[in-house]
Amino acid sequence: MSVYLVGAGPGDVDLLTLRAAQLINRADVVIHDRLVGADILALIPATTLRIDVGKIPGTSHSQDAINELLVSFGRRFDCVVRLKGGDPFVFGRGGEEALVLAEAGVPCDVVPGISSAVAGPLLAGIPVTHRDASHGVTVVTGHAHDGSAVDFSRIANADLTLVILMGVARRAIIAEQLMTGGLSSSTPLAVVERASRPDQRVVRATLAELGELDVTNPAIIVVGAVAALDLGLVSSYAVAYA
Amino acid sequence: MSVYLVGAGPGDVDLLTLRAAQLINRADVVIHDRLVGADILALIPATTLRIDVGKIPGTSHSQDAINELLVSFGRRFDCVVRLKGGDPFVFGRGGEEALVLAEAGVPCDVVPGISSAVAGPLLAGIPVTHRDASHGVTVVTGHAHDGSAVDFSRIANADLTLVILMGVARRAIIAEQLMTGGLSSSTPLAVVERASRPDQRVVRATLAELGELDVTNPAIIVVGAVAALDLGLVSSYAVAYA
Repeated sequence: MSVYLVGAGPGDVDLLTLRAAQLINRADVVIHDRLVGADILALIPATTLRIDVGKIPGTSHSQDAINELLVSFGRRFDCVVRLKGGDPFVFGRGGEEALVLAEAGVPCDVVPGISSAVAGPLLAGIPVTHRDASHGVTVVTGHAHDGSAVDFSRIANADLTLVILMGVARRAIIAEQLMTGGLSSSTPLAVVERASRPDQRVVRATLAELGELDVTNPAIIVVGAVAALDLGLVSSYAVAYA
Repeated sequence: MSVYLVGAGPGDVDLLTLRAAQLINRADVVIHDRLVGADILALIPATTLRIDVGKIPGTSHSQDAINELLVSFGRRFDCVVRLKGGDPFVFGRGGEEALVLAEAGVPCDVVPGISSAVAGPLLAGIPVTHRDASHGVTVVTGHAHDGSAVDFSRIANADLTLVILMGVARRAIIAEQLMTGGLSSSTPLAVVERASRPDQRVVRATLAELGELDVTNPAIIVVGAVAALDLGLVSSYAVAYA
């Protein structure tokens, strides 16, 4: 018996790892999120048990239910694949699931995936780090967990690129806090909607304009000098699927 | 003609993407870094031209030579694969290469890879984000570029996990600056040497001890509450290859 916490990447089936594809193929059960794309789910053999645990963000009750499911299936089957969008350990709550399994004595292994925090901007032509433009990158979530939200004024740093996942709903507050923290109102930013999907869209603006932008989830907000770059890529995964 | 900037991931061949494996297989030329592992290079067909541009860190002259090589090969061949360790756009200088190709009129596409900044800690049982322990993650390099180094006192933030790539040589200064910036000397940290390789090693300590630790490159330094976690994974890629 074993449970594999597997990252499915940002959406495109070609961005699965070899290991993820092998495990999906030999799993007894695949327990997946709503963020995993249809082309990836199509790799699951027809005879394999498949459970969609897609949940509304912020409902911790269903995370408990998922944890119970993983333990119970992990005890009954040889190969349980827990398939999550992006990387299971970049805001994927994979750490919690791994600890629950360890406490229950169910062996657990992990397969990292490509995080949309990096691939999302990239597929829009924006490198998260770039010589002279950025010394590094900070990735945070924009939404509040259990009532406590990140204070963006403390994270503002003109030397680093900032990537905000799930930040659309609170974009006005985020922009305000970043400017309070010292970022210029003219700091470039880009919003990448539906990264790596056929209908991917990129909106470029400045920090001052973020609060008023007409953008919707799922989206990645990139703040910093790199957001003004365009690598001039001839194609992207999105285009390949159009 | 096309040049593909392709991420090879943290080292293990199973952590290549499907797209990377396909491109390696059909390339006319593969131009690779020294950080790409032997098992991955073994996927290059025997008849494919293969160029090792492994370079000593910090020598910008050889980056110019690589740029010229990419443009010249990009014009002569249908499918040139530029294979880089990790993700080409997380300190991989992929952005510079893409811009040089765009200026030269050579079509360029990118294939993100799994960054060792996330996978390195994970394969050592450390999630870079974890509920209650971290609101997000900052990734920076520890070594100085062109004489300018990151000021870690400005990056210190107890709410975020800090992942430092290439930080071993300057670890004493880094620890000092992080404490100046407000991090407690008892902040947990872990150093993951040779992540995902058969001889991977994890050293756990506190920030106060970082300067004196006996660790060598390549290594990833993780600073923050998550560095005290151990997800109790039964195996890892390293173990699988041992």
